Amino acid sequence: MTPIDGGVTAAQGFRAAGVVSGVKPSGRPDLALVVADAPAGAAVVTTTNLVKASACLLTERHAADGTAQAVLINSGNANVCTPHGAEHTRALATAAADHLGVAVEDVLVMSTGVIGVPLPVGRILDAMPTLVDGLAPDAGPLAAEAILTTDTHAKQVAFEVTDDAGGRCVVAGMAKGVGMIEPAMATLLVVLTTDAPLAGPLARRLLTGTVRRTFNRISVDGDGSTSDTVALLASGQAEQPPNLEVVGHALHAVCADLAEQVVADGEGASRVAAITVQHAATEAEAERLARAIATSLLVRAAIHGADPNWGRILMAMGSAGVAFDPRRVTVTCAGITVCRFGVATSFDRGQAAVAMDRPLVEIGVDVGSGHARATMLTCDLTPEYVRFNAEYTT
Amino acid sequence: MTPIDGGVTAAQGFRAAGVVSGVKPSGRPDLALVVADAPAGAAVVTTTNLVKASACLLTERHAADGTAQAVLINSGNANVCTPHGAEHTRALATAAADHLGVAVEDVLVMSTGVIGVPLPVGRILDAMPTLVDGLAPDAGPLAAEAILTTDTHAKQVAFEVTDDAGGRCVVAGMAKGVGMIEPAMATLLVVLTTDAPLAGPLARRLLTGTVRRTFNRISVDGDGSTSDTVALLASGQAEQPPNLEVVGHALHAVCADLAEQVVADGEGASRVAAITVQHAATEAEAERLARAIATSLLVRAAIHGADPNWGRILMAMGSAGVAFDPRRVTVTCAGITVCRFGVATSFDRGQAAVAMDRPLVEIGVDVGSGHARATMLTCDLTPEYVRFNAEYTT
Repeated sequence: MTPIDGGVTAAQGFRAAGVVSGVKPSGRPDLALVVADAPAGAAVVTTTNLVKASACLLTERHAADGTAQAVLINSGNANVCTPHGAEHTRALATAAADHLGVAVEDVLVMSTGVIGVPLPVGRILDAMPTLVDGLAPDAGPLAAEAILTTDTHAKQVAFEVTDDAGGRCVVAGMAKGVGMIEPAMATLLVVLTTDAPLAGPLARRLLTGTVRRTFNRISVDGDGSTSDTVALLASGQAEQPPNLEVVGHALHAVCADLAEQVVADGEGASRVAAITVQHAATEAEAERLARAIATSLLVRAAIHGADPNWGRILMAMGSAGVAFDPRRVTVTCAGITVCRFGVATSFDRGQAAVAMDRPLVEIGVDVGSGHARATMLTCDLTPEYVRFNAEYTT
Repeated sequence: MTPIDGGVTAAQGFRAAGVVSGVKPSGRPDLALVVADAPAGAAVVTTTNLVKASACLLTERHAADGTAQAVLINSGNANVCTPHGAEHTRALATAAADHLGVAVEDVLVMSTGVIGVPLPVGRILDAMPTLVDGLAPDAGPLAAEAILTTDTHAKQVAFEVTDDAGGRCVVAGMAKGVGMIEPAMATLLVVLTTDAPLAGPLARRLLTGTVRRTFNRISVDGDGSTSDTVALLASGQAEQPPNLEVVGHALHAVCADLAEQVVADGEGASRVAAITVQHAATEAEAERLARAIATSLLVRAAIHGADPNWGRILMAMGSAGVAFDPRRVTVTCAGITVCRFGVATSFDRGQAAVAMDRPLVEIGVDVGSGHARATMLTCDLTPEYVRFNAEYTT
């Protein structure tokens, strides 16, 4: 698996663009487009939040037949809980389809930003010709820039993969975070592309399984957005694509990479914590325990303080609704065993604090009751997170 | 209902004491005792956390017969996940029983403080004679002081109530918070006393119902402690007690008052938010929606910023697992309608910010689908909360 440049357009058969439409008051780029040369195999996963963006609803309908050709994304306004939300979303899809000369049912739409403010749809429609004119096979980075909200930098990745029989393809993607992040069978805004041939049903199966173990295992603030959407488009332009297993691995690698980028850029975050629960009875229980730890404010504040506060970890596990025996639990912080069989070990607190004062801290929990494991990624809770979200109206 | 002085000993038939035993490194009072003149009607509710303090387990056993005579409380060490926890808890109960000359089965024990550090049980046993010598009918405030951990001040209350027939009693209580606070059928450490006559089963029924709607409807950080315990002791010494309904109202008032004191003193808190969800289909659904709002970091950060960010409120409701129609939801912040039928009203942001910049902010959510309601109390999320819990090992 080789990392390559180019972001979401690194795969054959895709062009992208990113421009300023004027939705963001800051005047930064806020409108992006990713287009396949021809209708592509497609699958999407969107938020399970009951309050759902009209863009999510339209995107689900348009991807239901397993094909799509374009993804239009605006940032700066989520078009959620607005009087004419659905109408505006339709207008965006129709305008993109007209300018591109593609079927409107093959256009997916994503919107992110403030909730409850009417979308200035006219500005986006006015910018559409410039956006379409700007489409280029090397403009992935521009698109990745234009979908950001409170992110501090663009998130993109591309891998070239090969198999033993000489097969070769590219899987690529871009994402935006970085607040209201605890996806549930869905996540943030993510566009994934590949030149491997994946028909709709296959794309859906691959995407669903991958999202479950990557984007659905991250948490920035425990809050789940109303706009989360991941879309996968497969152009099929790879000359000799590799076997499906290799494609699946690459898709997982791209999603895991983007998921970690989102957590690392979490609002106010100063470090990432990878919480691995192992020897649980089932993977679902391992995930529930890891999620309870990853979403505990007290654990996340302790991680910020590089404090091996394992009592808080056991407290969080005890509220997870999972049966386990505290007397069989062992906890490691940055490789140092701080609790063995439910009681404190005589570790060196100073040494542990130094080991935990890193950009990535690994927390390991051994439940001692089975063979399943799961890892959740979260970031530390910092005073900056609170300041940012108290002072900034999203 | 008349507020009176004296805290937990304001009711007839109780004495209390609070001393320094040396468990707290700070040298502040850390050992408290509340004693009834004779075996009293008693009930307890303890944490549902799977990792449970040995004090909770002993207290449940000793209160199971519906009588108790003493409550021994140490702060500074929770005696949870320690090698000889159960043994040490038994030693405390036995020592208290011996010094008081009461049955060991009538002694309840509560411990709060750091998790995973062996309890310096010797210091507590050494302090026991001084503690028992200090027992006095006016020492409620000393006991309330000795049970604190990260609280900034003592929490106590007492009400005298009367009925039309000349009945009269006192219901009183003391509590400590103020981190790891989101009780589930249990809460913090609370001792409630009354001179009304309540046999065990009646005390249990009253207590369970009251806890459900008071202490179980507060959240400071969404984390549920391993030591939460509420104990109610009824001495029956009131000469002419009022009818049961009046006693029940007073008990509710005492618990609601202590619950609000705990939230107001929540770690780092600068204001309390009372989140009321009304016109929900059932009380359970109203509570789930209110809890989802009250535990959202983004909502709590917005409350800190006096920001009427109702988009975050709808987002939190949408993840609560409760069915509702967003187009019927109306939201008020400090009395100002900011969202009507799921879309923004044209309210004055500056005016709303001023109205919300108060010690108590009321958030109202009308779901428009039934007749049930529930109120949750929470505090704002502040940079101080994070700083405190990153730097302070609990």
